[in-house]
Amino acid sequence: MTTAFEKPDLGRLIASQVPGRSLDQAFYLSPGVFAADTARIFHQDWHLAGHISELPEPGNYLLFDMLGESVIVVRGQDGALHAHANVCRHRGSRLCLEPRGSVKRFTCPYHAWSYEVDGQLFNARQLDAGEDRDALSLKPVAVELFEGLIYVSLSDQPASFAALREELTPHVRPFGMARTKIAHRRTYPVKANWKLLVENYNECYHCSGAHPEFSRSHSIHMTSDRVAPLNDDLQARAAAIGASAVTLDRSTTHAPDGSPDYSYNRYALFDGFQTGSEDGQPVAPLLGDLTGYDGGASDVYVGILNPMLVYCDHAVLYRFVPVDLHHSVQEIIWLVHEDAEEGRDYDLGRLTWLWDVTTEADKRIIEANQEGIGSRYYEPGPLVEMEQYTRRFLETYLARLA
Amino acid sequence: MTTAFEKPDLGRLIASQVPGRSLDQAFYLSPGVFAADTARIFHQDWHLAGHISELPEPGNYLLFDMLGESVIVVRGQDGALHAHANVCRHRGSRLCLEPRGSVKRFTCPYHAWSYEVDGQLFNARQLDAGEDRDALSLKPVAVELFEGLIYVSLSDQPASFAALREELTPHVRPFGMARTKIAHRRTYPVKANWKLLVENYNECYHCSGAHPEFSRSHSIHMTSDRVAPLNDDLQARAAAIGASAVTLDRSTTHAPDGSPDYSYNRYALFDGFQTGSEDGQPVAPLLGDLTGYDGGASDVYVGILNPMLVYCDHAVLYRFVPVDLHHSVQEIIWLVHEDAEEGRDYDLGRLTWLWDVTTEADKRIIEANQEGIGSRYYEPGPLVEMEQYTRRFLETYLARLA
Amino acid sequence: MTTAFEKPDLGRLIASQVPGRSLDQAFYLSPGVFAADTARIFHQDWHLAGHISELPEPGNYLLFDMLGESVIVVRGQDGALHAHANVCRHRGSRLCLEPRGSVKRFTCPYHAWSYEVDGQLFNARQLDAGEDRDALSLKPVAVELFEGLIYVSLSDQPASFAALREELTPHVRPFGMARTKIAHRRTYPVKANWKLLVENYNECYHCSGAHPEFSRSHSIHMTSDRVAPLNDDLQARAAAIGASAVTLDRSTTHAPDGSPDYSYNRYALFDGFQTGSEDGQPVAPLLGDLTGYDGGASDVYVGILNPMLVYCDHAVLYRFVPVDLHHSVQEIIWLVHEDAEEGRDYDLGRLTWLWDVTTEADKRIIEANQEGIGSRYYEPGPLVEMEQYTRRFLETYLARLA
Repeated sequence: MTTAFEKPDLGRLIASQVPGRSLDQAFYLSPGVFAADTARIFHQDWHLAGHISELPEPGNYLLFDMLGESVIVVRGQDGALHAHANVCRHRGSRLCLEPRGSVKRFTCPYHAWSYEVDGQLFNARQLDAGEDRDALSLKPVAVELFEGLIYVSLSDQPASFAALREELTPHVRPFGMARTKIAHRRTYPVKANWKLLVENYNECYHCSGAHPEFSRSHSIHMTSDRVAPLNDDLQARAAAIGASAVTLDRSTTHAPDGSPDYSYNRYALFDGFQTGSEDGQPVAPLLGDLTGYDGGASDVYVGILNPMLVYCDHAVLYRFVPVDLHHSVQEIIWLVHEDAEEGRDYDLGRLTWLWDVTTEADKRIIEANQEGIGSRYYEPGPLVEMEQYTRRFLETYLARLA
Repeated sequence: MTTAFEKPDLGRLIASQVPGRSLDQAFYLSPGVFAADTARIFHQDWHLAGHISELPEPGNYLLFDMLGESVIVVRGQDGALHAHANVCRHRGSRLCLEPRGSVKRFTCPYHAWSYEVDGQLFNARQLDAGEDRDALSLKPVAVELFEGLIYVSLSDQPASFAALREELTPHVRPFGMARTKIAHRRTYPVKANWKLLVENYNECYHCSGAHPEFSRSHSIHMTSDRVAPLNDDLQARAAAIGASAVTLDRSTTHAPDGSPDYSYNRYALFDGFQTGSEDGQPVAPLLGDLTGYDGGASDVYVGILNPMLVYCDHAVLYRFVPVDLHHSVQEIIWLVHEDAEEGRDYDLGRLTWLWDVTTEADKRIIEANQEGIGSRYYEPGPLVEMEQYTRRFLETYLARLA
Repeated sequence: MTTAFEKPDLGRLIASQVPGRSLDQAFYLSPGVFAADTARIFHQDWHLAGHISELPEPGNYLLFDMLGESVIVVRGQDGALHAHANVCRHRGSRLCLEPRGSVKRFTCPYHAWSYEVDGQLFNARQLDAGEDRDALSLKPVAVELFEGLIYVSLSDQPASFAALREELTPHVRPFGMARTKIAHRRTYPVKANWKLLVENYNECYHCSGAHPEFSRSHSIHMTSDRVAPLNDDLQARAAAIGASAVTLDRSTTHAPDGSPDYSYNRYALFDGFQTGSEDGQPVAPLLGDLTGYDGGASDVYVGILNPMLVYCDHAVLYRFVPVDLHHSVQEIIWLVHEDAEEGRDYDLGRLTWLWDVTTEADKRIIEANQEGIGSRYYEPGPLVEMEQYTRRFLETYLARLA
């Protein structure tokens, strides 16, 4: 309700940031900046809300909750997805209280007003005959289905998925993400502003020191001159198994107008690693149409808050969810082939080991980052070449906030 | 300390509300509105502080605590009630730390300044001889005793009880509330703004869906055309047992100038229900001067925050207590005849069953209401005829806030 | 980030305080006042950070944490103390996460930048060659060692220890504080503004009622005319054992310009009490160069937040640490001779009994004080003669805030 930085001050603050340096502490401490983040980032961008396997039947719904907003994503009788604000049009109660469920119609737990799955008001006892019932449908929310992944946007004019679909689909399609299922999901609460989570994810300058488990198998913690030859070698192996190894960079400062950010990039694991596992051996059946293991991992972004890492046998989806100025949640969703059976085809411990241990470490270093940034002795410091994507994220963030 | 809505904005906000619709979300989310609620509602209105049976002897005291204020209500040597701010005049310490007790004098736990039960400074060691000791009495607080119920007001110019006493006493007197005792009390913390609790209590549009236990026995969840004949039949039965079945409506928009709200109304339970119990059978001995059971229940209000429901054998008192902008407490006090003995004359489980299960359900639906109102998709919706008292409450609330 | 009282309002508020009365409630409730307290008191004054015995070897460090700031105090290779902000110059992470430790160099847990113990940047992988590495040393913090006690100040222009060293050293030196060790430390969280803790510590008007254990042995809860003869008698006994019994008052309103407050005063325990123990008997070996027990206790202040009480056989150090507007921590550190061995020379229970029971009682009365001051019925009340040091503290506080 209160903003410490009014618009003119926010403008000045943004203008005073030095390119190539970390941001001023106000971006991590000011309620006014967080209000701007909410309005211009969280209420605009697309968010990963779930996977289509969660809504197999008409009437199945799931909730997407963020910053006090709650969105119902439901599969209609025709199989299409609908999304509605989870707010009754009578006196504003939540309609759905459980995070997942199945309904014929939505009935408000307060006064029993009910709505069709497509949002139309179905029944409102004793409603005055003079009221316009059509104006009392549930408020619609934008929803998109991309390769089995469900995205929602709270924006009235959400960015278009057209370019993303056209450009990104050929590269992602071979992994058959629409034919996967959720093997596991876990949330990691982090006592830090959301931007520090994204900054952390976008650079691997910290990996060699902070992530020994990751650095044993993944090459991106090395400088680009050392990574390039490995990735050159990957090209042929990727082609052989039907995976794309192109680099498609439409993220942050390279994002097309009127489109969400997106990017695709496949990089090499070290010799002996077929996937992101402790011993390098597969941890689940091959995904989609792949015919083998190329020892690569695909970095994919759909929007700035929804990266994913796709190995040959599983995918790891990230959700960066703001809670308040000083608290966030990082959620990880592990996907495997829809026919894979736990116990027979995969073991949860082996499947989740790498990114669980890595995310626990990130949580610790991000929290220590937030603590230090809160000091009056903090001042923005220089980013190095390996932090270039973090730099691009910060530039894009400032541009959107402006 | 900070107000998001200054006076001019609050005025605009109030003026922009549409009669017959629920309120704008700012009324449930804005610290500025809550500051106004505190100043113009909580620091002005009368509050139920307790029952006279809690203070049987001179020197007995109880505390009334609300929003950081603490009031000592004490019975003096002459038997009369006194109320004082629970604040030492020296350096401001609380005088009484326990919610109930018995004292000869009040002695501050800090520097041992002491006060007579009537508030006069008794002893202040080493106080400079030049100080005016009479100016260092405890600050007085307004207190009223009505039919055994103790009310306090933090206002410097509290509304007068004169009209209420004259009009309401004849209808309430037969229940002998002054000759009851507290059989049980329970607090229900509710994560919602206080207004949502009052809005909920003032309408029974939600009862048929949300309160099956209540709706089996009470008729007020039906539309007025269906309730009227039942209440007509009640008139003679009520007269026969010495209970009043008049309708006295001086609440909300009908409240007299300079007086607290008050109202009295008796309505019919369904056939087979002698009281508000699970099986319809009595749960305690008859109250006051009643000579039998008429199958009715009296709705009584003293102020907007203190409704009660009086059956033939017990009374159920409500206290709506604000905690902060987003948290409230609903307290229920169950009264039975002062001679009734637990185990012999009443069983606590049977006595409290109905309103315990009903209040637990209300807690859930009110919390879901607050959550939905917090959404940017919420907009005020239309109230129906059965929500007329809620509508009147909202109009009165806006008028007092203005 | 937000201040309820801007500078002009704070000035008016300060000017409206009445000498000899407790302060207006705004000083205990206003975020704006707390922001001013932080800037003008906590970021200026000296704070007790620890004891030299905690840093016996080069590379040993300890953290001083307060209000989100964290300072590393470390012993250098040359044995001298250094203090640095615990903030990496790269992206602001905390460098040291553990409260105590031993290092060769400081290495950031995030991107592994490392620093010498004296603060110089040692290594920053891939740092652009154009960056000025000398400008990326750790930010220095002022640190002083006085008689074994380590003090830090977050001020850019901290008050000088010169006068304090010259005047206070002769009186404190006989206790050999530099040759002690920490026998025990305990923190007492108090739900109150920090000023109420200091106000409480600075007067013994409350002792006779609130601290029966203390009042049995210590004489300062009595009026000055009754204490004076006891203290006169102490002079010769103190001289006989090598302790100073002068009164040196450079605290609060008597503090020299450009110097921290300081004071020394020795007062008599009651007959039969050789030290501050339950039975009056010693609880540890004699401190420093003392040759016996004189039945006295020395009150010593270094800054307004760091009082200590020195008996012949142990010292009790206080730290008043603000947490937020409404929460503080009182920490007590018990020192004994460095050669004393627990079990053989002292028993922790006997050593800590008096000030543990006294501080628990203070916690209760201070919290009741904060509660009462929050009431709209609170108004500043008259201080008595025995509260003169509290009065001086309040005057000094207001002057520094102005």
